[in-house]
Amino acid sequence: MSEQIDNDRDYVQSIERGFAVLLAFDAEHPNPSLAEVATQTGLSRPAVRRILLTLQRLGYVAGSNGRWSLTPRVLSIGQHYSATHTLLEAAMPRLLKVAESTQESASLGVLDGTDVVYAARVPVRRIMSINVSVGTRVPAYATSMGRALLAWGTPEQLGPVLAQAPFDKLVAGTITTVEQLQDELAKVREQGYALTSEELEQGLISVAAPVRDASGAVVGVIACSTSTARNTPEGFRAHAVPCVLEAAALLSTDMGHG
Amino acid sequence: MSEQIDNDRDYVQSIERGFAVLLAFDAEHPNPSLAEVATQTGLSRPAVRRILLTLQRLGYVAGSNGRWSLTPRVLSIGQHYSATHTLLEAAMPRLLKVAESTQESASLGVLDGTDVVYAARVPVRRIMSINVSVGTRVPAYATSMGRALLAWGTPEQLGPVLAQAPFDKLVAGTITTVEQLQDELAKVREQGYALTSEELEQGLISVAAPVRDASGAVVGVIACSTSTARNTPEGFRAHAVPCVLEAAALLSTDMGHG
Repeated sequence: MSEQIDNDRDYVQSIERGFAVLLAFDAEHPNPSLAEVATQTGLSRPAVRRILLTLQRLGYVAGSNGRWSLTPRVLSIGQHYSATHTLLEAAMPRLLKVAESTQESASLGVLDGTDVVYAARVPVRRIMSINVSVGTRVPAYATSMGRALLAWGTPEQLGPVLAQAPFDKLVAGTITTVEQLQDELAKVREQGYALTSEELEQGLISVAAPVRDASGAVVGVIACSTSTARNTPEGFRAHAVPCVLEAAALLSTDMGHG
Repeated sequence: MSEQIDNDRDYVQSIERGFAVLLAFDAEHPNPSLAEVATQTGLSRPAVRRILLTLQRLGYVAGSNGRWSLTPRVLSIGQHYSATHTLLEAAMPRLLKVAESTQESASLGVLDGTDVVYAARVPVRRIMSINVSVGTRVPAYATSMGRALLAWGTPEQLGPVLAQAPFDKLVAGTITTVEQLQDELAKVREQGYALTSEELEQGLISVAAPVRDASGAVVGVIACSTSTARNTPEGFRAHAVPCVLEAAALLSTDMGHG
């Protein structure tokens, strides 16, 4: 069987539209009206109406007084990802240890196209904590997580990221060229981990180390972040890198590596 | 506009089938073949093939060597729930405080039909920790979270739960009758929180307190669990209830209550 879509007959447009409607609910539109969902998605009102009623019958959205909202049932979909990826469950005690040792939030990141997705996270209580939830996406080129994933990545993984160049300059310190990224990836391979300071956001320092499976492939990263208000890049290197490297090594062993 | 489906013309069956295929990936079937997905869902192989290819093009599944898996993109769907429900973000510092004070895992639960869904969770590192992830569902009648949600629930919320009676006897101590549940809910209303011991699982003790919004409606619960190996119900009542009540009161204030 081919794993590509041979022709449009193989593509189920209603499914695409169903997800488009589900993803139209966001921080700016937590309780949209039917008309707002139609504007958001570019679909006709009758189409949106049928999709919302279908999603309501399936339990993923609820309608009240002409406004719609997502139900907690949508969380179950992500739970199926966790249940089918042993990496997530195995990562949790390792992340807790990193958070405990560093007193900073610890995360598991995985590559999805040109983005890194937070697949698990142990937050630490602070007024100024880095506010990301599981499922949040960040660009791979500008983050320690992305670089630790790409440094040992396959050409198939690296290609789409390099094709994004010149990279968006998110803050003053963000790299923008393929040459800069290749230099950074070489450094990551040499030192065994990635460190970024103020490339994704002002004030954000982050370190990440690769997690490998039985085949030796990098399947995720363990990362830890702090703020320039609390630490310097060199201070965080000394403080957090040993914890992150140890956690990544232990998780790699859990996944059958070495 | 009616918020009910008037007739089958309004129901988009492809969307239902798309979700059925997505949810066919579970702990027992993390990497199914097309044939296995067909068996799981009861759909024909050609239908499953079209749906898998569509989900692959949308980035939610990946196929390799005749086996399929979920991608981290499915986590983004749940992230939209978090982004549209301010309760989740506001809950995080409160849960961290409960976990810190009790040294036990703390959770935010919300009602979805007759189940409670874990909407946010702060785990605590232990060999014997209670292993649930966000999106996990547990029956409302048998849990402290469910009882704290139902005790002040609307007839529309309580009705479907009562209709499940007699309740499944999950372990020796599980209540099974409507009368028992009504007695428990009265006790919860009187004391202001719910405590259950060994009703969902052997060895599990759990407390939960209601979180209210500006209208006074109970919109979630803050809960904390331990094991009979570490504590007794009365010990946990003295230890955890004050923390959970305080966290729920603060979160209610965050949500505009009182």
